[in-house]
Amino acid sequence: MMDIAEFEPDFSDKEETEIRTALIKLQEKVQEAKVPVILLLCGANGSGKNAALGLLRDWLDQRHLDLHAYERRNIRQDTIEYRRYWCDTPIEGHTGLFVSSWYSDPLVEHAYGRINDDELYKRLDECNLFEKMLADGNAIFVKIWFYKTTAEQEHFLRTMDDNPYEQWRVFPDDWKNCCLSDKFESTTRKIIRYTDKDYAPWFEIKDGTMTDRMRAALHYICARVDKQADLFLKQKSKKPEYKKIKTDKKAEFLKDLKLDANISKEEYRVCLPYLKARLNALLMEAKRRNKKVVLAFEGPDASGKGGVISRLASSVYVRDCNIFPIAAPTKEELAHHYLWRFWTRLKEQVLLTVFDRTWYGRVLVERIEHFASDAEWERAYDEINAFEKQLTKGDNIVVKFLLYISSDEQLARFKAREEVSYKTWKIGEEDWRNREKWDAYETAFDDMLAKTNTKYAPWFVIADNNKKYGRITAMRKLCEHLEKVLDFKPDLPDPVFEKKAKKKKS
Amino acid sequence: MMDIAEFEPDFSDKEETEIRTALIKLQEKVQEAKVPVILLLCGANGSGKNAALGLLRDWLDQRHLDLHAYERRNIRQDTIEYRRYWCDTPIEGHTGLFVSSWYSDPLVEHAYGRINDDELYKRLDECNLFEKMLADGNAIFVKIWFYKTTAEQEHFLRTMDDNPYEQWRVFPDDWKNCCLSDKFESTTRKIIRYTDKDYAPWFEIKDGTMTDRMRAALHYICARVDKQADLFLKQKSKKPEYKKIKTDKKAEFLKDLKLDANISKEEYRVCLPYLKARLNALLMEAKRRNKKVVLAFEGPDASGKGGVISRLASSVYVRDCNIFPIAAPTKEELAHHYLWRFWTRLKEQVLLTVFDRTWYGRVLVERIEHFASDAEWERAYDEINAFEKQLTKGDNIVVKFLLYISSDEQLARFKAREEVSYKTWKIGEEDWRNREKWDAYETAFDDMLAKTNTKYAPWFVIADNNKKYGRITAMRKLCEHLEKVLDFKPDLPDPVFEKKAKKKKS
Repeated sequence: MMDIAEFEPDFSDKEETEIRTALIKLQEKVQEAKVPVILLLCGANGSGKNAALGLLRDWLDQRHLDLHAYERRNIRQDTIEYRRYWCDTPIEGHTGLFVSSWYSDPLVEHAYGRINDDELYKRLDECNLFEKMLADGNAIFVKIWFYKTTAEQEHFLRTMDDNPYEQWRVFPDDWKNCCLSDKFESTTRKIIRYTDKDYAPWFEIKDGTMTDRMRAALHYICARVDKQADLFLKQKSKKPEYKKIKTDKKAEFLKDLKLDANISKEEYRVCLPYLKARLNALLMEAKRRNKKVVLAFEGPDASGKGGVISRLASSVYVRDCNIFPIAAPTKEELAHHYLWRFWTRLKEQVLLTVFDRTWYGRVLVERIEHFASDAEWERAYDEINAFEKQLTKGDNIVVKFLLYISSDEQLARFKAREEVSYKTWKIGEEDWRNREKWDAYETAFDDMLAKTNTKYAPWFVIADNNKKYGRITAMRKLCEHLEKVLDFKPDLPDPVFEKKAKKKKS
Repeated sequence: MMDIAEFEPDFSDKEETEIRTALIKLQEKVQEAKVPVILLLCGANGSGKNAALGLLRDWLDQRHLDLHAYERRNIRQDTIEYRRYWCDTPIEGHTGLFVSSWYSDPLVEHAYGRINDDELYKRLDECNLFEKMLADGNAIFVKIWFYKTTAEQEHFLRTMDDNPYEQWRVFPDDWKNCCLSDKFESTTRKIIRYTDKDYAPWFEIKDGTMTDRMRAALHYICARVDKQADLFLKQKSKKPEYKKIKTDKKAEFLKDLKLDANISKEEYRVCLPYLKARLNALLMEAKRRNKKVVLAFEGPDASGKGGVISRLASSVYVRDCNIFPIAAPTKEELAHHYLWRFWTRLKEQVLLTVFDRTWYGRVLVERIEHFASDAEWERAYDEINAFEKQLTKGDNIVVKFLLYISSDEQLARFKAREEVSYKTWKIGEEDWRNREKWDAYETAFDDMLAKTNTKYAPWFVIADNNKKYGRITAMRKLCEHLEKVLDFKPDLPDPVFEKKAKKKKS
């Protein structure tokens, strides 16, 4: 029994024609359905995993196929384990073919006895969560595990080792893993049992010749993808219904918010440099500890996000800060899970990453404009919490700001934009249309705050009718939060106004 | 005099309105002209560079602005210096704002005395080449150098250092650079003189208050971009003429090519595993030496590129190999320099990168279909040589294959594709249309080989009427080339057929 990427199965011409035709038709259907397929091949070296990969690479239309295999070392070096996988999720119509991937590290670590059952299940919870989010986003999961007995593995390795032209196929750890095959077997059973889900079931291939194994795998792929694509096409033809947003009660978050709070010009002039220096010191401390900071800004149009962000950003060297203004998604972004465009922006992180509008678009504009179905935006709160949790686990400090203004203040700012020649581009019909939905947005903001104000990624609501007050307050809140999280106070003299503010508080 | 990103110039309301309106109009024009703008701000800390950056960040429409500042350390870690810059070149309609960037390292290294004049000019040749290629691709360059006297620098640093809230603005090297300011001054003059080009001139700002400096910079930006965009719009309205491709003489490369060369089934069966093992050993040796391998495949439709690539790719672990099938460029790719889509694919390189069709599309399909003007494809040979040179300088081994078949063989393969149900997707009207231009392609291949067969990135022309012969020959040529480049011979027993081949040769 051989498992090499260029294994040629013993199919009759007729059978090969049938299977290859089915595979090509399948790819066409996947493109018609506009869904991504995530195809996972797992198992030991020599079990059929690589042979299946080789066949699929040769037989599928490569233009719609992405192959992903990772060095475990590289994945473990990333502080955010799933970042890489998220960025590599296929675009709709494509098949992403993953070898082992997110199951690889938990499997090896547990089989080697480096993590216990508890830790294994925690890791598998993350696998489940990742797959659930993507499956909810219409990804079709095909997960195949190839088994091999210890005797078969031994035989395979020996055959390879004895042939000077095949030796290279034996991976450094193969013999070790073969010796520990009982352990791998028992870990595998735990993994399969724990991660076999309706939305991402496992298909196990336990015995047979290599040709049998290929036949089983290819037939399963065709059957599963075909069925799921059909289901999806049927679903898509149904028109979703949308609940009306209730706007009858005043938003909770406005209760304690004094929208007209303001500060004097003098206080602004004095406090701004102080807060910048304080923020800089805190960010540099974060850098020393290999931490990164992610800031999220939301708020109605013209609520002053740009102004606050500009002051925050100028508290660090240019190269330490990335600002991402988030507009309507591009075609490519729309063809991915809605979180994908944020993951890709977080792929190469600098010290400070600022999002001017964010993933909360899912529960704000997409909810209100019905770009997302009710089910989609309703489950998005949990998805977003999970996303932010992953960021914070990976040494990110996540802080979120909702800048708020009164409807009258917005009107005044809109009018001002229309009158100033270099600001007219900032105001268009869409802004006026959004303005009519002010109450719906207020409810949506309220729900968002109620459901996503977590300890690890808190919201700060900032009154911004007075821009100077808003800027100073946002920076102060951020500094206070960073001081708490880092348990570090910059050594800076308090200016007179800060002293007053602190006194008032205590 | 202060240079802080949030410097507020002392403009009158009227002047501010004029400048900001001009900037916004400029961005609109740039989008209309569909050209990228590359805006470079250079100079010492405190010279106005950061202040200009701050103003532009606040005043331009951020949706069409990309900011780039690099840690010199990160750039130097990359074996291919310009990879990062290439990947960051703005899409048409956008402004890429770069701080120091490609001039930064040569400047500092020369001012510190770590490189001599020769080395400086070599580095600057690369700056010029990079800018020339982009400018030829219609990028508008705006390069501004802000000067500052030693006394001014000292004063600036002292002021910052004395203020607890501004201290952080002093970079670790600022005082050192201030002490060496004579050296920086003299290096700067050399840089400016050597890289001041028609297509990318320098604008120097030498004195005046910070407000004067901002005024000068902003006015220059507006004037330069406006003029260049107009020029480009005018050019665009002219219809280019195309020379006819001469197809009257037989292609040179076919002279020694025996298209029908073939090998026996037995030789193929024996040699393939041997060559795979040999290639694997060579690639692993390359890996040990931190080298990477880039393979380029060209050839007529159905010339068997996929089959060769599949065999090559299965000579290494899946994770060590990336295959990129290159189809027609996407909208985003079209809106960049034609080399951009290859640079971005080379951003995260694995051991072996294989391009199934390549950057040579510029001098093949784009030449023949008039997607590129005569001037464009004619200068592309040099550009491509420069591109490959950069790759090889950066520890890449670049090898190029032209797989060739006879026109009759293509016809036979086309017909076979039409008859096999799982291959029909591989053949369409376009392929038949291309086939009619067989002679033009032959001339284009010939020109390509004549102009880009370099020592550092050689071409191998492989006869592929017999697929088995083509596969074995391509792999053998690759192995021989790698053995020569690496000066390393894998320790493998020669199979009988290899021995024969070697004997024949000697």
